[in-house]
Amino acid sequence: METDRDAIHRRRKSCLAAMNRGDIDAVMEHYVEDAVLLFSGFPVLRGPEEISAHWEQVDRPDRDARLDTLDIRVVGDLAYEVALYEVTAVGDDGEPQVSAGKNVVVWRREDDGEWRLAVDICAADV
Amino acid sequence: METDRDAIHRRRKSCLAAMNRGDIDAVMEHYVEDAVLLFSGFPVLRGPEEISAHWEQVDRPDRDARLDTLDIRVVGDLAYEVALYEVTAVGDDGEPQVSAGKNVVVWRREDDGEWRLAVDICAADV
Repeated sequence: METDRDAIHRRRKSCLAAMNRGDIDAVMEHYVEDAVLLFSGFPVLRGPEEISAHWEQVDRPDRDARLDTLDIRVVGDLAYEVALYEVTAVGDDGEPQVSAGKNVVVWRREDDGEWRLAVDICAADV
Repeated sequence: METDRDAIHRRRKSCLAAMNRGDIDAVMEHYVEDAVLLFSGFPVLRGPEEISAHWEQVDRPDRDARLDTLDIRVVGDLAYEVALYEVTAVGDDGEPQVSAGKNVVVWRREDDGEWRLAVDICAADV
């Protein structure tokens, strides 16, 4: 039997894999309809149009995002995850550039039983 | 009867007021023992020593922090709040400097019935 934490890990891995292969439709399947994206250097982005536009904008073939989950806590159909992120992409000068920081996701389990990201906030280290 | 959302609003206001008057002991009473602070430009800060040291470090008489809460959701003894923040402080040149961004707090209701911040993450706008 899959625990809630296992299910959240599975969903996170599948969302990250979709991001890294540039499959934005698959990324968006992981967000609730009224999700909110709160990233350093960007305005508040709400809902599928603004969120998918963000992921389209930052997508590039060499972009690789990694996550290191520190905590997951589940209460009923709500959970939160604290993680560190690291994104590598080749810059305009051809050299790989790394950006890293802290990430918190609020997860909601929806009526179909699947966990989805309701809040996704990234605070850059620099 | 005070609703959970009202209680969270009350706690947030009281935490912010303590911050703005530089009463770090009173600020810390609002965090759970294993709280984590995740701010743009800072490393992961965990627990009362690291968190109080941060608030001591940034405290100054003219510092004024304001919050605009966008969402609060409560599930049992867990809740999350999405807010915008704006901090004004006089810079070294004597001019007021404003920093603004997005904030998510994960709240936990503890055994004494009081809501406390378990995760506090701030993603700067720039």
